[in-house]
Amino acid sequence: MSNPIVTFIETRASTNLFEPGRTLADEQIEELTRLAARAPTAYNLQNWRFIAVKTQDAKERLKAAAYGQAKVSEAAVTYILCGKLPSHNVVEERLRPAVDAGFMPAEMVGAWTAAVEDSYRDNPQRQRDEAVRTATLGAAFLMLAAEACGLATGPMVGFDPEAVAREFGLSADEIPVVLIAVGHAREGNWPQKPRLPVSRILEIA
Amino acid sequence: MSNPIVTFIETRASTNLFEPGRTLADEQIEELTRLAARAPTAYNLQNWRFIAVKTQDAKERLKAAAYGQAKVSEAAVTYILCGKLPSHNVVEERLRPAVDAGFMPAEMVGAWTAAVEDSYRDNPQRQRDEAVRTATLGAAFLMLAAEACGLATGPMVGFDPEAVAREFGLSADEIPVVLIAVGHAREGNWPQKPRLPVSRILEIA
Repeated sequence: MSNPIVTFIETRASTNLFEPGRTLADEQIEELTRLAARAPTAYNLQNWRFIAVKTQDAKERLKAAAYGQAKVSEAAVTYILCGKLPSHNVVEERLRPAVDAGFMPAEMVGAWTAAVEDSYRDNPQRQRDEAVRTATLGAAFLMLAAEACGLATGPMVGFDPEAVAREFGLSADEIPVVLIAVGHAREGNWPQKPRLPVSRILEIA
Repeated sequence: MSNPIVTFIETRASTNLFEPGRTLADEQIEELTRLAARAPTAYNLQNWRFIAVKTQDAKERLKAAAYGQAKVSEAAVTYILCGKLPSHNVVEERLRPAVDAGFMPAEMVGAWTAAVEDSYRDNPQRQRDEAVRTATLGAAFLMLAAEACGLATGPMVGFDPEAVAREFGLSADEIPVVLIAVGHAREGNWPQKPRLPVSRILEIA
């Protein structure tokens, strides 16, 4: 299979060393976010928020919350991917455009609202899992979009979530799930690290 | 930006209706898993397991655990994406090939092992979050790989995790995070559902 998507998958590596001083225009930050948000979410809840950290001051605050990792200040932008605890109150608004577009029957909106309420009510772990899943899918599509635009990406889970929440004003229903540094790679990055053989991770049932 | 990856992102939709009776060869199931497992994981832990459900009997058991969703039996295969609670005991084995390949200094293995132990020890929520993140990244790359091969995908979070764990023999450190139906779309699927405007989900700091 020689295919641009397969090539991306087989060659992409997490970038640690970025060219400092390079920037992204706000329009590019917005375009990457628009593409990242095409990732699927349960019930189309879109329970995420993207914080693009680009100013020197904000980078220094995020770097301190990320145990001093240099790529936070060296990359052009680091996105904080926040997942939000799901709420049935937003379902109507999230689905209305699909009804207006003519493919979703209007009567399904109430059913999906009830399903969301049933699924997550009184289940804080399930709510948190959904927030983590949603933000992670957004992160995956963000990395994909950035690499498609010729940019390098470096995901990070090493950060203090309380410090990130405090410094960037996250609300009580928002969880900082992963940081994605985006920018221009400099020399010296590692290639993709070898993976386990498929036989070690796959069962066919 | 006209680019195969951007086109994929902008047009991909979650498939609900599959052509029943179509199958995937084991070699294709393995190839999709190989590509999915190129997704990045924290410390290259690769803390995931893929169960590809393809036999009629296994499909019926999974469908029952997924509240009767038809796509589980109609799609060629449904993957159960399991995340594993991270363990520092596997770090040495996961990183050795990167040392042998010559780009990772051998002395870093001990440091990463200690970092994994420090990060997750006595923190069950952080362990679970990592399992959910890892399996979700694997799911995103699996969807990407499948669509690159001309197949349709439908992610599902509506299932009983205890039933899935019991029916498919998950171990105590494995969490079923998401199901991904993979197969051949039939007529009648919805297009991609509209998303919120970027201004609603993005903050530039």
